[in-house]
Parts: sequence; structure tokens; C-alpha cells
Amino acid sequence: MRIRMGMAGGGEGAFIGEIHRAAARLDGEIELVCGAFSSSPQVSRRTGAKLGLAPERVYGSWEHLLAEEALLPADSRMEFLCIVTPNDLHFPIAVRALEAGFHVLSDKPATRTLAEARQLAGVIARTRRCYALTHTYLGYPMVAEARVRVLNGDIGAVRRLQVDYSQGWLSQRLETQGNRQALWRTDPERAGAGGSIGDIGVHAFNLAEYVSGLQVTQLCCELGVTVPGRKLDDQAAAFLSFDNGARGTLTASQVSAGAENDLTLRIHGETGGFVWSHRDPNSLHLLSPAGVHRILRAGSDMTDLHPDTRALCRTPAGHPEGFIEAFANLYRAFLADIRSSAEAPGACASGARPTSPATASAAVRGMSFIDAMIRSNAAGQRWVALEC
Amino acid sequence: MRIRMGMAGGGEGAFIGEIHRAAARLDGEIELVCGAFSSSPQVSRRTGAKLGLAPERVYGSWEHLLAEEALLPADSRMEFLCIVTPNDLHFPIAVRALEAGFHVLSDKPATRTLAEARQLAGVIARTRRCYALTHTYLGYPMVAEARVRVLNGDIGAVRRLQVDYSQGWLSQRLETQGNRQALWRTDPERAGAGGSIGDIGVHAFNLAEYVSGLQVTQLCCELGVTVPGRKLDDQAAAFLSFDNGARGTLTASQVSAGAENDLTLRIHGETGGFVWSHRDPNSLHLLSPAGVHRILRAGSDMTDLHPDTRALCRTPAGHPEGFIEAFANLYRAFLADIRSSAEAPGACASGARPTSPATASAAVRGMSFIDAMIRSNAAGQRWVALEC
Amino acid sequence: MRIRMGMAGGGEGAFIGEIHRAAARLDGEIELVCGAFSSSPQVSRRTGAKLGLAPERVYGSWEHLLAEEALLPADSRMEFLCIVTPNDLHFPIAVRALEAGFHVLSDKPATRTLAEARQLAGVIARTRRCYALTHTYLGYPMVAEARVRVLNGDIGAVRRLQVDYSQGWLSQRLETQGNRQALWRTDPERAGAGGSIGDIGVHAFNLAEYVSGLQVTQLCCELGVTVPGRKLDDQAAAFLSFDNGARGTLTASQVSAGAENDLTLRIHGETGGFVWSHRDPNSLHLLSPAGVHRILRAGSDMTDLHPDTRALCRTPAGHPEGFIEAFANLYRAFLADIRSSAEAPGACASGARPTSPATASAAVRGMSFIDAMIRSNAAGQRWVALEC
Amino acid sequence: MRIRMGMAGGGEGAFIGEIHRAAARLDGEIELVCGAFSSSPQVSRRTGAKLGLAPERVYGSWEHLLAEEALLPADSRMEFLCIVTPNDLHFPIAVRALEAGFHVLSDKPATRTLAEARQLAGVIARTRRCYALTHTYLGYPMVAEARVRVLNGDIGAVRRLQVDYSQGWLSQRLETQGNRQALWRTDPERAGAGGSIGDIGVHAFNLAEYVSGLQVTQLCCELGVTVPGRKLDDQAAAFLSFDNGARGTLTASQVSAGAENDLTLRIHGETGGFVWSHRDPNSLHLLSPAGVHRILRAGSDMTDLHPDTRALCRTPAGHPEGFIEAFANLYRAFLADIRSSAEAPGACASGARPTSPATASAAVRGMSFIDAMIRSNAAGQRWVALEC
Repeated sequence: MRIRMGMAGGGEGAFIGEIHRAAARLDGEIELVCGAFSSSPQVSRRTGAKLGLAPERVYGSWEHLLAEEALLPADSRMEFLCIVTPNDLHFPIAVRALEAGFHVLSDKPATRTLAEARQLAGVIARTRRCYALTHTYLGYPMVAEARVRVLNGDIGAVRRLQVDYSQGWLSQRLETQGNRQALWRTDPERAGAGGSIGDIGVHAFNLAEYVSGLQVTQLCCELGVTVPGRKLDDQAAAFLSFDNGARGTLTASQVSAGAENDLTLRIHGETGGFVWSHRDPNSLHLLSPAGVHRILRAGSDMTDLHPDTRALCRTPAGHPEGFIEAFANLYRAFLADIRSSAEAPGACASGARPTSPATASAAVRGMSFIDAMIRSNAAGQRWVALEC
Repeated sequence: MRIRMGMAGGGEGAFIGEIHRAAARLDGEIELVCGAFSSSPQVSRRTGAKLGLAPERVYGSWEHLLAEEALLPADSRMEFLCIVTPNDLHFPIAVRALEAGFHVLSDKPATRTLAEARQLAGVIARTRRCYALTHTYLGYPMVAEARVRVLNGDIGAVRRLQVDYSQGWLSQRLETQGNRQALWRTDPERAGAGGSIGDIGVHAFNLAEYVSGLQVTQLCCELGVTVPGRKLDDQAAAFLSFDNGARGTLTASQVSAGAENDLTLRIHGETGGFVWSHRDPNSLHLLSPAGVHRILRAGSDMTDLHPDTRALCRTPAGHPEGFIEAFANLYRAFLADIRSSAEAPGACASGARPTSPATASAAVRGMSFIDAMIRSNAAGQRWVALEC
Repeated sequence: MRIRMGMAGGGEGAFIGEIHRAAARLDGEIELVCGAFSSSPQVSRRTGAKLGLAPERVYGSWEHLLAEEALLPADSRMEFLCIVTPNDLHFPIAVRALEAGFHVLSDKPATRTLAEARQLAGVIARTRRCYALTHTYLGYPMVAEARVRVLNGDIGAVRRLQVDYSQGWLSQRLETQGNRQALWRTDPERAGAGGSIGDIGVHAFNLAEYVSGLQVTQLCCELGVTVPGRKLDDQAAAFLSFDNGARGTLTASQVSAGAENDLTLRIHGETGGFVWSHRDPNSLHLLSPAGVHRILRAGSDMTDLHPDTRALCRTPAGHPEGFIEAFANLYRAFLADIRSSAEAPGACASGARPTSPATASAAVRGMSFIDAMIRSNAAGQRWVALEC
Repeated sequence: MRIRMGMAGGGEGAFIGEIHRAAARLDGEIELVCGAFSSSPQVSRRTGAKLGLAPERVYGSWEHLLAEEALLPADSRMEFLCIVTPNDLHFPIAVRALEAGFHVLSDKPATRTLAEARQLAGVIARTRRCYALTHTYLGYPMVAEARVRVLNGDIGAVRRLQVDYSQGWLSQRLETQGNRQALWRTDPERAGAGGSIGDIGVHAFNLAEYVSGLQVTQLCCELGVTVPGRKLDDQAAAFLSFDNGARGTLTASQVSAGAENDLTLRIHGETGGFVWSHRDPNSLHLLSPAGVHRILRAGSDMTDLHPDTRALCRTPAGHPEGFIEAFANLYRAFLADIRSSAEAPGACASGARPTSPATASAAVRGMSFIDAMIRSNAAGQRWVALEC
């Protein structure tokens, strides 16, 4: 049986909404049954029509969607809500959807503030509904493999981690030139207090904690507002201190003119290191002293990969998989959570798997990161502890 | 309205069947409504059940499928049949499906012999149904861009072309070790007279003609049977002569131990060259004298790409797209053909677009290539003309 | 006429001494005429004999070398001294050599302290002798090209710079295992107050200022001592503030297990960026918005390069040049300085060329950097100004 | 004691002469003592003066050089002659030099015809002088490592080999535009009967036999003359048959517009493969089934390399070495031959080492290759045996 999905946001012109829908379709396990695709009822209706939804399941607002769907019979109403609105709505919609009994899959960042994230975590725990954040990069097989191998001790205790996320698209002040993506991302009211750190830095942070299996305890951050007239940070750098004593750096930029969407993680332990880059996501570089440099490659047939990693591959080695497949892997894990939850509410067990996607705790961690980055910067690059 | 697809082949354990289904699902424009997924009715039923098909639309044989679907009302019966069986069935199923009024999307090679391919072309012309071959690599945006630019004269008249397709998976005699993929591919009864040339060489040939916009007129080929006991070629090499006088080489191997699925095209004209490799499919290298080396990158936002190329991209630059997306692009083009055909039967216009996928003529060309390769080799590496 | 060189340091077992000699030999413009190759007279003699030097020109100490060479006739005594000792001797030897009338080519860091560096600069100015530091990476043609193009405004005003220098060889505590290279580099008495920052961080700093044409005004640094028992930093990270308002980060590590000698610079301006990596030193990546990614390639025949860059290439494009050739380019520039100085003492004009190597001011800048890094770290990651 | 070298050819404007000299200087083991640098005595004198040679050791012709040097005392006359003239003079000079008692290091191809090559081999054997050909690519450490490992059985019996050498510089008819390099290379009188095959194809052939440890027994070749008006081949392709039954292809082109000097070897055996490319010469890719892809890296400290390979590295891993260093490795091996020959004339033992450079037998093999390529092409792409 396919799982029934509803969607909040993702109307015409939104980039990520269509990615979500494609990812949801890929494995044929999900059916989009309803949506409130835009704050404009007209846009919402037009989007729904294009998607072939029944007109009565296309709503003019997310409040309406939640209210109406809850009234439908259990075997036809949506089972989970996918939230792909601008940042400011992630939290209120998620809370209301959970309270209404729906599972929630949300874009990051989960909320606008750390306080909201804690509140959200409370709601998740209380409602015993499944919740996941689409930290896309966790869906790449070779990211999962890196995590499995680091946890397995393949490179010894982690000593040094460097994560960099560089984009160039905000090098110009697009927000004054009619670019809607730029508009809300640079507006503190809609994006939250973080600019580049909320949009991409939090992905880098999430990746760093995921692969290392460590937690950042303290950080020291410098935020930069590069383009004249902009209100939020468009570049950022931080020193990171991990709970095992390892050190790290995190850098993020949306003003690296000419960069695309370049996320790179380098992690070094006592006896080796891993390098993964979004430019070549199906490769994982394993470095060892004395010149042993291996390239581990994604593929359903790669017997040297962990079985969980192989299961994230839809094709044998040599058949490139990409962003949409990574996204679809997050959906897969979320569906597994929903299914196990159906048998034992609150059992959303994905967190127990080594290759789990981001769940409630990641929502709090992410907001705690953004909060700490802003506090550290405001204090003139002082070390601050992550509060969570 | 979604287009209704049926499927012949693609039961459990088949690699390419699930790729087809994922690609068909990706854009949400196609609904799989029926199938005869295996020569074993039991396997067919089990596959259909897993896919959530209505039991009455899951058939025990493709003959049955064609007969029964034809009896259904026009607004519910399948509109096109996707053929993903072993090679020997491509032709008979395609002919029968076309005759029954269905459009056909078929895996390559189209037939087992050149004579069959010509016969097929006749059927296509007569029935005025849409027909396409899934030469996957034509679905990659940067392959399309290479074609557009070559046709546009960006590198001057083509002088030299090298295409290589290397795999390593048949380095061992898997066909005696229970590997079903290997079994039929190395069996002349099922694969046809070509081994590596039918399985991958024909892709390389198709890519070469597509990007260059040229036709191979003659070739001189050496086939190799490397693994003891094997009956069909598992490696091949050929000199190619193109209709504009350009020279080329085509090499294919399934015994390049350690290779994955590595297809590379290099094409050089009077004033520059293009290099494209499946290892990094979202990049296209443009080489020019005096050291100008550009990397053109796929992306829906890349304004330096041809609009048709951009339309093949689902994401902005920096978000890797891969094999399934390329496949889905073939489906997209086929759907466009079907839709235009509905207005004007026989209008299957994809061939008129610079970024069209492979159609009926490609079926004949491909079989003509295989035929010529075998004739040239049998004659002790003599030049032979492609007959078509 | 070949220029006569003497050498202090570089006895058996020293890595960099033989690199210097190879670089000095490469263009046939330099003759090694004398040396004090080791603090052990016996090792010095043995090294000199292997090098084919006249026994009377092989000295047991650098003091002896300076004293004796000064007594030789002007047309036979050494003209410049190459200093390749451990760090602690760079300063005293350089000062004494300059005072004795010899030009000096020194390994970095120039001195152990900033005060010494200032003192050295005074001696250079007073003696009007030529002085250069072997910041090797400045000798790579594509580094020079990057500088020329940044200064030319090709990427607009610089906004963001990231430089990373990663090695892995000190991941283990080699200094207690008889490794002489590790021994002095981890000993504050010999290496100075900086560990990784003095050994490699200063190269990264030098490269950043060279290519950007900017000066770091302030920095905020964290130093790490990773390997238990070690006294000096073996990893470092810093935020950089440039005199035009640009921001940057500098990271250096000798405990990135499995890394080789990986130096990478990324510099982004308003309208584009450059990326250069020591892994592929003959390529320079030029990134621009809208997907224009060019690879500029080194080569004496590359007409799109600046003439000064082409002059640094000994071969046409496609013939890899490497570390020794980069070193030899520093020697070339130094020889040009010596020759111009012969006509007009004190004219050491290399600083006036866009592709000049590191000179006296670089010595002060480098020590100022190390000094600031240590002060900032000692203050608990406070911003400090570079004093110079 | 340094070995005394003379040089025939290499006057102003010659590319390879200066490369030879730089390579000869690099290790400080060779002294250039004399030369006949050009057919123009004036150019020869000017070149010699620039190189700082004694005027009486700069000759107006190679005949004069041989005659005069032979009259000098044994401890001052040149010990070996380096021949870097256009192709047509390689043979006569080599024979005369050997007859006069000098060792010979010659550019390839050794002669203009196979008959000459056999004659040359006879002279070498009779005179018991050392002879080597500068097949540059054999001097790269990772090429040597590939050979050692293939001979060691690391990839099992070789089954398939592909070698490609692509350049683009002759895409235009430079020979009519005053380009001297192009002029003699496209003139049958001076270059010999092979164009691209003599200039670069023979390097590819040599590399293939060297790394595989196999001999080509038969080949089937197509030569192309691409640029209108040119007399000699500027592109070539061949099927190769090896003495163990392995198959291969060799392709060479000087009209691949935009290509630099791109030589790539792929060799696959029963259990794996090696890939080496001149673009990244310090890496050797080892491919194995099940996704094991290792990058072996050059470096004097790489303990996983064969000791002979490490000895070819002047620097630790991460310090790029290139074309000149590869050349210098050929000189090193030749010097070792000369030294062993001094003790036991005719002992030129380099051929006995796994990492030996090309010697007399390579001269004959190379000419036999060129001869066979031309015969096969002339016969309309028939298989012909290599005669030697």
C-alpha cells in the first residue's frame, strides 16, 4: 500500500517543492493526495491541477488543509505532511500537523529559533508522530558509508574535521531583482536570524555531526554580510570543538562567485581520513598513511560497502545517482518509520539505524547551531556552548 | 492526464525493469497500469502485486497482455508498451504491439537481426505508432549540448571521433555461476549474434552518430572472445569511417576488470573538441587550441546552455543528476511524441528536435552496426559498408 | 657567466637541501662552489665530496664558510649563500652573510621572531644585498597567473579567500622515533614558537597575500596540539581580515592522516573566483557566474597567459612541471635580482614585478603572521593586528 | 666524477634540446662539454656560447665534433653523445659515434627505416658501447610501478590494452606557416615514412610493450592524413595482437584540436587493471573487481611502491614531479649503464632491470612498429607481422 502524502508549499516557481515530489514518486511507494501549495489560493489550485490532484483536495491555506484532511476517513486522508514553505512557516505548520495526528517531513531549518525547536521536540515526543528533516546530504550512499566506517573505527579517533559549503548565486543582490528564492532567504522575517548559516551552514553542521558521530560542544564564529544592503549573513566561518576533543572548521558562503552547490567534508582520525564532495557524490576517498588512497564507489553491487549503504543504491556501480535519489532515500527511511510507527506508535526507529536520516534531535541540534553561531558572532567571535 | 504504460519483462531480479519504472514515475506523467513481467506467470503476478497493480491487469504472457488490453475501453487501456525483456523478444513483441495499435518504447537492441530491424521500421511506418529505443546516454543533458554545439559548428568540421565503452563485470564466466544477467547476454539464442557489441557497443555507436550528427558508412572490426568457453564477443574494436570523411574508433569491452560502466566520447573538429564521460555526466569539456579548456556544466539555471539542454535539467547546477534522470528524459521525449501523435497520427516529431531520443531509424542503424561488425570480423577485419 | 652559490645546511638526510641544489642546477645558470652542509664537519665534508666540490671549499661550520669565502678573490668567491638549515639558524646566518657582503637566499621562516625579522629587514636595507625567501609555491606559473589576473580585476574586488595546507606525516609522534625532520620541527628551540604555522601555515599566508595582492590586517586564531606529548601546534585555523574588507580563513594541519602536501587556494571576488591546488599545479580554475568554468593551463605556448607566466614555463602545455621547476623559478628571479643589483646596488627589483618571489618584506610579513597567530591563540582566540 | 656529454642538435629554437640539457643537469652527474648544435655553424656557436662552453668545443658539424673529440685525451673528451637532431640524422650520427667509441643517447625514432635499426643494433653489439633511446614516458615512476606490478602478476594475465596519444598542435597546417617543429616532422625526407606514428605513436607502442611486458606480434593499422596538403599521417589507429593472445588498440593523433600532450594507457588482466595518464603522471590507478579502486602515488617515501620506483622519485609524495624529472631518470639509468660498462664493456645492464629505459632492442622494436603500421595501412588495413 502506498503512503498518502500532503504538501504545504511547493507552488509554481519553487525549486525544492518539485524535487520533493520527484523524490516521493521515485520508488512508487508514496501517493500525493492533497496540498496547500501556496499562500495564494489561486497558485495553489493551479499547481494542484497540474499535478492531477482532485480539486477538493487542493486547499487555499495550510490551516484549511489540516482541518479538512482530519475530517476525512482514516483510509483516505493524508498520512504525512511534507512542509516545503519558506522557513518561517516550518514550525507552526509542523506543530499543528503533529497535533492533528499527522506525521511530518519538513525542510530545514526546523524552526526559526532554538526555543521553537525545543518546543517542537516536545510536541513530537508527546504526539508520538514521526518527524524528519530533509537534510539531503544524509541520503547519499557514500555519506552513509563514511559514517559507518568512522563509527567502526576505520580511521581511529577523529582529530580534525573540515566542512565547507560554497555557493555563488547570492554574489549579486538578487533579492532586489525579483528573485523569489533570494527574497525570502535574505529577509530576517521569513528566513530567521540566520542567512547563509540557516540556508546551507546548517546542512554542513548536520553532515559533520552525522559522519563523525560526534557532537559540537562549542564554537567560535564570524559571520559576514558581504553584499551591500543585505541584512543577513551571506558568508560564515567557525571553529568547532567536538565532544571528544577533536577540532574542526565550518565555512559557508553564498557569495563565492562561480561556485555551484559545493559541499565538501574532510575528516581525519589517528590513522586515516575520509573526503567526500558533492561534486562527485558517488565516490568516497579513504586516505591512509604510506600512500594508500582508495576510492570507494557507490553501487548496489559493491560488496565492500556496508549492506545498509548498498541498500541506498538503486543501480550498480558506474550508473551515477544524484540529488533526487539522495532525497528519495530520506523518504524511504521516513516511510519505514511511519510503517513501524503504525505497529508501535512512537517507535519511529530510524534514529537507531546507522544510516538514519535527520530526526527530531537533528531539528534541535540544527537550531542550537544557528543560535550559537549568531551569539558567538554577536559577542565578537567568542566561544559559546551549543545549548541543547 | 497521465499516460498509461504497460510493461513486458522487468520481473523480480531484472535490473533494467526497475530503472524503467523509476524513470517513468519521476516526472509524474506516467501511470503503470498493466504488465507481463516474466515468462513465469507466477513471477509476473508477484511483481505486479508488489507494484500495486490491479490483479486483472497483470498477465501471464505478453501475448495475453496485448490481447486483453486491446479489448479494454480506449480511456483505460494502456497507451504504450515498454519492452524490457531479453533481446530476443524485443522484436516480436514490438511488432505485435504496434500492430495492436500501441506505441512502443523498447530496450536496445531493437531486434536480433538487421532484417528484423528493417521489417520493424516498416511496421512502424505503416501503423503510424510512436516507437523509441532507450539509448540511455542520449538522455543526459550534456550529451544533448554536445550535439547541439557540434551541429552548430562550434568545433568546425568533425575530423576524428573516439568512443569507448568499458565494463569489467564479465571478466569472470558469470554465466556458469547462476548470474541471470550474464546468462542471457552470453547466449546467442537470446542475445542475438552480438555479445558486447549488442549489449554496449551499440550504445557507443548510437552516441557517436548522435553527437557528431554524422553517419558511419564503413567499418573494420575485430571481435574478441576473451573468457574461455564463452560463445559471443566480450570485447570489440573498430575503425569507423564517417560520411564526411572523418575517421573514428569504437572500442567496447566487458572484460576490463575493475571498470564499471565507463562510456567516454571524444570528438575533435577543425577548431576544437568535446569530451564527455559517463563518470562525470554533468560536465562537458570543450577543448580549443591555445589552451582554452572550458567545462560546461548541466543545470536548469545555466544560461550558456541551449534552452533544450536546460529543459533536460531538473535542478540548478551543482545538484548532480544521473542515470535515472537521463532515462526519464527519454520518457519525456516519448510522451511528447505520443501527445503530438494523438493530434496527428504518425507525427511522432521527436526526430525533428536536436535533442531527440533514438527512434525507428536508430533501431535500423543500430542493427546495421551490429551486422556490419560481425561481417567485418568474420571476414578477417575487412572494411564493410553499413547496410541500411 | 654562471653565478656562484654557497650553501649552509643541506647535508645528507636533509630533504630540502637536495631540492635546492637540483633547482639551482636546472637552468645551468648557477654553480655551487662551496658549502657548510652540516653542524657535523664530517657530514659536511662527506656531502661536499659527493657533490664534487673542491675540498678546500667545504667548511666545517657556516661561520668558517663566511670568513673564508670573504677572503677569496671577487671573481671566485661565492656570490650568494643559500640557507637551508633548521629554522633557528636562518636569521643569524643571513645577517652575518649579508654583513659580509653576500646575497642571501633563505628557507622560510626567515627568523624565529618578529623582532628578528625587523632586524633582518634593517640589515638588508643597509647592506643593499639581495635577499629572498623560498616560498616555493610562488614559483608555480599558475599561481603567478592567478595573481596577475586578480590584480587586473578579472574577478572584481576580492571578497572571500580560503587557503588550506594539509599534511599527514606528523599524525604519529615521529619526533620520538628517530625522524630528524620531525625532531627539529617539533622542538621550540629549533623551529621557533610556531609548529605547523611556521612550517606550512606561513606558506599558506604568503600565498594568500601574494595572489590576492591584499594584506591581512587582523586575524583570530586557534592552534591545536593534537599528538600527545608534542609541544608545538600541529594544526591551526584562523579567520583573516584583509585590508580591503575581504574575509578569509586559513587552515593548516600536519595531522591530517593520509594527506600528502596539499595546498589549496580559493579566492572569490565580486564577479568570479580562482581555485588553485598543488595537486594539479599546472591548472588554474577560473569560475564565473552562469556556469563559465575555465581551466587555464600552464605552458610556454599558451598565448592566453600573461607573458611573465609563460616565461615561467619550460615546456609547452601537456608536459607536467612540478616542485623542482617551481623552485627553479625562484632561483631565476633571484639571479635576475643579483644581476640588476650588480649594476645598481640595492636595486633588487624583483619586488616590482607582478610575478616576483618573496623578498625582505615577505620575511617580515611571515614572521608577523606567526607572531599574530600565537598571540591570538594565547589570548583565547581574540582578534589581533599584524604588527609590521 | 661527472660524466662528460656532447650534444648533436639542440640549437636555438629547438624544444627538446633544452629539455635534454635541463634533465642532464638536474642530478649534477653530467657535464656538457661540447656540441654541434645546428647545421648552421653560426647557430651552433651562438648556442654553445650561451651555454658557457669553451669555444673550441663548439663544432660546426657533427662530423667535426666526432673527429675532434676523438683526438682529445681520454680524461677530457666527451664520453657520450646525446643526439637531438631531426629524425633523419639519428641513425648516421649514432653509427658514427658508436664506431668512434662513444656511448650514444638518442631521441626516438632511432632510425628512419627498420633496416637501419637492425644495422644499428649490429653496430651497438659490435662496438659494445652503451646506447639508449629517450622514450621519455618510461622515466615516470608510476609507469615503472605499473610494469613491476604487471610483471608480478598483480592483475593476472593481460587480456586487453588500450593506449592513446593525442595532441592537437598539428590541427592547422603549421608547416607552411614557418613553424620549424612542424616543418621537419611533416616532411618524409626528414621525419621518415611515419608522421604521427613516428613522432608519438612509437612512444605509445613503446609504453605498451614496456608496461605489459608483452610483445606485439601483429597489427592492423589505419593511417589518416587529415589536414589537406600534408604528406604524412597525422592520425593513426591500430588493432594490436600480443604474444600471449591479448588484444589491444593503439591510437595516435596530432589533429585532436585542443588536446595537449595526452598519453593514456589502460591495461586489463584477468583480475584487475591499471590506468596511467600523462595528465596526472604521479598517480597510478589500480582497478579491481568489487569496486576496489586504489590510487598509487609517487613519492620517495611511499613504502608500498617497489624500491626501484621509489628510487625514481626525488621528493616525497605530494610534491609533483614532471616531464623533466622523467627525462632525468632516463639519464640516470644511462649513466649507470656507462659506469657498469666501464668495468665490463658491453655490460650495459639496464635492460636487466625491471625499470630499465629503452635500449637497443627498443630501437629495433620501434622501427619494426613503424614499418608494420605503414605496411598494414598500405595493404588496406591487413594484419601484418612485426618483423624483428
